[in-house]
Amino acid sequence: MTGGDHDAAPRRRALKIKIQIFCGEEIAMGPGKADLLDAIRAHGSISAAGRAMGMSYRRAWLLVDAMNRCWRDRLVDTTPGGGRERGAQVTPAGEAILSAYRAMQAAAGDSAARHMTGPLESLLRPAPLSDAPES
Amino acid sequence: MTGGDHDAAPRRRALKIKIQIFCGEEIAMGPGKADLLDAIRAHGSISAAGRAMGMSYRRAWLLVDAMNRCWRDRLVDTTPGGGRERGAQVTPAGEAILSAYRAMQAAAGDSAARHMTGPLESLLRPAPLSDAPES
Repeated sequence: MTGGDHDAAPRRRALKIKIQIFCGEEIAMGPGKADLLDAIRAHGSISAAGRAMGMSYRRAWLLVDAMNRCWRDRLVDTTPGGGRERGAQVTPAGEAILSAYRAMQAAAGDSAARHMTGPLESLLRPAPLSDAPES
Repeated sequence: MTGGDHDAAPRRRALKIKIQIFCGEEIAMGPGKADLLDAIRAHGSISAAGRAMGMSYRRAWLLVDAMNRCWRDRLVDTTPGGGRERGAQVTPAGEAILSAYRAMQAAAGDSAARHMTGPLESLLRPAPLSDAPES
């Protein structure tokens, strides 16, 4: 929490902020990967986390693999078994990265919301005018 | 410029931040629309701006139309002619919104970069490890 943002919440409703952290050309952390870490923590496996997010096992596995290759420590450990996996855990490094990324999201969101003033605040309509016919 | 971000530039290289301002379900301002306003200012027409951005005239026109419907004042005025348009200008309201959005982007970017510390800084590899074979 930073100071001076006590009135930022209403302004933030109109804002959507996406932060990606790159490792070379790959995305080391972003909104989808952070949500996947939350889901792995909640569900205890990559497959269950992927299912909960409406994502294929392959897609979830690729996101975990990218995270594990982009950071010096693995963010997710899996317990291999007879099938694809017996379970997955977010590592202490994963918890630290996730927590720091969430703090970064919150700080950037607060900064942006504090700039939702002046013409951005006074000129934004609550809803758009209906579509005009194309010229 | 805010204080304390003198060392934010190097950290920012790994960061990509996208801010969208919503008007109901429509995007009133975002990176593409802001860049299109810059291009209209530089090229003096929607069609030339769209061409410069590798965007169809229809796509550029739809982005301009969405902006003009989402804000209380039009952000772009066009001079209709025999063809599709004879020219387009970013209005004073458009200049004000664009400038405020750029300031918002810069502030959010500074905030995020200042959070690129601790495990985010120390654990991020400069390049990812190569792909692991899928399990």
